[in-house]
Amino acid sequence: MDQDRSPPFRRFDDYRWEGVAHLPYKEDATTPFKSVTRQVLFHEPDMGCELRYFEVAPAGYSTLERHEHAHAVLILRGRGDCMVGTEIRHVETNDLVSIPPWAWHQFRATAGEPLGFLCMVNALRDKPRLPTEADRAAMRETPAVAAFLDRTERPA
Amino acid sequence: MDQDRSPPFRRFDDYRWEGVAHLPYKEDATTPFKSVTRQVLFHEPDMGCELRYFEVAPAGYSTLERHEHAHAVLILRGRGDCMVGTEIRHVETNDLVSIPPWAWHQFRATAGEPLGFLCMVNALRDKPRLPTEADRAAMRETPAVAAFLDRTERPA
Repeated sequence: MDQDRSPPFRRFDDYRWEGVAHLPYKEDATTPFKSVTRQVLFHEPDMGCELRYFEVAPAGYSTLERHEHAHAVLILRGRGDCMVGTEIRHVETNDLVSIPPWAWHQFRATAGEPLGFLCMVNALRDKPRLPTEADRAAMRETPAVAAFLDRTERPA
Repeated sequence: MDQDRSPPFRRFDDYRWEGVAHLPYKEDATTPFKSVTRQVLFHEPDMGCELRYFEVAPAGYSTLERHEHAHAVLILRGRGDCMVGTEIRHVETNDLVSIPPWAWHQFRATAGEPLGFLCMVNALRDKPRLPTEADRAAMRETPAVAAFLDRTERPA
């Protein structure tokens, strides 16, 4: 068997998977996020995409960022809130989220429980960009976005 | 917004998704399978892969087939049995199945409940091949495979 290929069967146990490393969300510790882990479920040599599982602990949030590559997301566990562009929605288990190129986005575990999601992404992709102060000011022109960001950026 | 792109948010309701067509599993009615439906959750213009949801009704099974492209599978609903190459396993919700190129494979809803699974696949891919009589004879040299196939091919 190709050493880079996943074994045919891998068991699930409490949101961990057999043989899958439980990783920090970002390798760059200076990026703003809170209480997120990452597991790469599929990174196959013949496939154009990867499938990852991210889990945000209660009150945690992913990095507010954007990039050229798209994300295709299915909520696998729990509930929370999600921003895509200027739209904010409550999301629940099995809901779908599509993040188009260059849309600002963030996931937040706002429901007192973990928010876990699958994310399909191109294997070859650009690095995420963080918002400048000017970007943040532009985002805040949408009142719902300002309220969403305030909950992350200025915790009570 | 790009008309070919999915909307940012799509709700889940009883293993159907908002705006997602509930399709027959195969367009070719001569292919052997039983009680399977297909929903394409993500087919995005910028992504190298698609994400589909297949659901096999109790006692149903997917086509026994193989192809050059790989499949990356996560069981989303229920339990059942799965063959990959000459290996057969019981699979449950959230287990992972990796189907390498040219491996014979089949999913069977053997537990008296639906077996639903997500399947990530390259957007550009070859067509599945069905087994010849010689292929079936070769598969049957593995006793567990023969027993698995007998349950499908010669129902009591």
